[in-house]
This record gives sequence, structure tokens and C-alpha cells, in this order.
Amino acid sequence: MKILLIGANGTVGQAVQANLAARHTIVSVGRNSGDYRADLAQPASLEALMERVGKVDAIVSAAGNVHFGPLGEMTAAQFNIGLQDKLLGQVQLALLAQRYLNDGGSVTLTSGILSTEPIRFGASASAVNAGIEAFVAAAAIELPRGLRINAVSATVLTESLPAYGPYFAGFESVPAARVAMAYQRSVEGAQTGRVYQVR
Amino acid sequence: MKILLIGANGTVGQAVQANLAARHTIVSVGRNSGDYRADLAQPASLEALMERVGKVDAIVSAAGNVHFGPLGEMTAAQFNIGLQDKLLGQVQLALLAQRYLNDGGSVTLTSGILSTEPIRFGASASAVNAGIEAFVAAAAIELPRGLRINAVSATVLTESLPAYGPYFAGFESVPAARVAMAYQRSVEGAQTGRVYQVR
Repeated sequence: MKILLIGANGTVGQAVQANLAARHTIVSVGRNSGDYRADLAQPASLEALMERVGKVDAIVSAAGNVHFGPLGEMTAAQFNIGLQDKLLGQVQLALLAQRYLNDGGSVTLTSGILSTEPIRFGASASAVNAGIEAFVAAAAIELPRGLRINAVSATVLTESLPAYGPYFAGFESVPAARVAMAYQRSVEGAQTGRVYQVR
Repeated sequence: MKILLIGANGTVGQAVQANLAARHTIVSVGRNSGDYRADLAQPASLEALMERVGKVDAIVSAAGNVHFGPLGEMTAAQFNIGLQDKLLGQVQLALLAQRYLNDGGSVTLTSGILSTEPIRFGASASAVNAGIEAFVAAAAIELPRGLRINAVSATVLTESLPAYGPYFAGFESVPAARVAMAYQRSVEGAQTGRVYQVR
């Protein structure tokens, strides 16, 4: 398969690439690195990306920014960062996928454990991740040509504990290589409308 | 209690007002009617609203626009309508509530059945409603001063069947007066972080 991987240089993206590249051709995309450049927060950059890359068999997104901070200090503009980037950016990938995926192709998006397990400072991430998961379930029933869509929802990464561990008190972490297997299940499997939880 | 009701002139809003006005003082807000004017899609208009109204004991939102349409024709801009209006607008009410609610006060937001039961044309509404519900669960654990936050998630209204019935094939409808009781439970009860489902 020819697989477009957005966020290829991130912790999850690198693990997904290591997993999938053994059997597939990976076209890597990043904000500042990779075969192509694009920015989730710029819908037009995603359309330009797909126009340049052309048809693919799978689109995998392991990207998305969200604002973390105390609810008492959060502004609507800060909350909107995640809506425009991680949520709308990934939705835009799915909308474009309808034109740029080969028959039977798949879209795999990234949500996260905060959709169902809130933590302090994570109100925006909870909303964004839950929005992605509900979108995946809804989009799956409208996609044409056997196209599939799923999301991967992981808990905190073992590799991210130095930076994010204090926010996830008492959460068990998972290594990125295990998370990558959920993306593999989505891409190489046959399910649609699923949220693969990695806990 | 002094209760700020946004969307007071809508089908749900009118039923909520009829329910709550028997025991409380209602300050009604609408885009084009009511004691005050405000627009969920304009965060600044909500801040100006709260500045004029001052402290209240409860904020109830029965408002929010979302784009409905086939996924195959949906654009990122159309998807963003619901993110900016029903989702971010109601989040902004909750953020402002931290400053403008009296101790022990409550915020009640509106989501909807599509968060968990997708229908054709409803992918944006599914994402928006799920985002609201996850936000409510997350915000509840950070709110200070005994403030509470809940959401009401109703199925299609009996009063709305002439307009929306065809989209909700086989869904049982509920009259707005029953939905209004869920808002009453949120405002007059003691729970927080809850989604009251009316089915």
C-alpha cells in the first residue's frame, strides 16, 4: 500500500513509520520535515498536499495540537487552537480522503485517552478527542467506495513521561511501539467506525 | 434563583423557560429577541452579555448552530460552523461562568443524541455534541467554589418532527416539556459532570 503519514516525525509517527514501512510505501508529512510539508491548522495546506501526492491507499494522521492549561485561565481563543488544529485538521483529512483514497482505502485519525478520562488542565483536549471519536463513528456510515475510517486513542506514552507524566498521575503508560500496532490494525484490518484504545 | 437562559426563544428554550419561570427569575437571551441579545458564535458578545447582566445563580444554554449535510459535500468551513457556534460558544459560557456565577451556581449546556447515535448528514453534529459532553465531564473536575456543570442530550423533539423527522428515521421523539425537566434536574439538583439523556 501507499500510505500518507501526517506527523511522521513525532513520537507516535516515528513508531507508526517503523511499523508500516516494513510492508508498505510511506509518504511522510510534517510541519517542518518529511517528504512533504503541511499544517493541520491550515485546511488549504492539506488540500494542496493531497493535490501534490495524488491517490493513496491509506491516510494516517499522528498529529494535532491542543492547548493545555487550567480551566480558570483558559480563553476561548486558547480552546479554539485544538478545535482548528487537532479536530478540524483531522476532519479535513477525512473529507479530502473521499476524493484522494483509492477504493477500499482507509483513514486513521488520532484522539487520546482524555476523551473519556479527564485530567486537570485537559478540558480542551477532552473535547477535541471526543469530537474526533464521534466524528469517526459518524463518518464511517457515510463514506463511499468501501472507504474506512477509524481512530486510535492511546493513554500517555512511556516516551512522553518526562514531559507529561505529572499531568497523568497514576495512569499506566504505553510505549509508542504498542500504540503503532493499533494504527497497523486500522490500516491493514477491515473494520470501520472503530476507536482502537491502547491502554 | 436568578437564571440566565440563552436561546430562550427556541423550541427547547421556551419549554425550559415555562418550567423554570414558575420558581425562578429568568433573564432571557436570544440572537434577535429576549431581555438581552448575544450570539454564541461571537465570544466577545457573550463576555459583553455577562458584563451587563452581572452575577447569576445559573446559566442555561439551549442554543447552538451546526451544519447538516452529506459528508461527501461537506467543507472544512461548514464543519467549523458548529465548532465555533454550538461548541466553542457554549464552552465560552462555561469559561465566563467561573467569574459570573455565584458560589454553588450551575452551568447547563445542550448537546444531543447524535453524540452517540450517528445519522446521515450529522457528522458535524456528532463531533460537536460529543465535544460538549466530554468538555462537561472535564470542566466539572476543575470548577471552583462549588460550581457545577452538566449537559442535556435529547433525542429529536416531537415539535421538530415536521422539519427533522426524515433525518431521524425510527427514532422515538420526546416533547420539549420532557426535555425541559432535564434542565430543571441540572439547575435544581446537586450533580456535576453529568450528561442527562432524554430519550
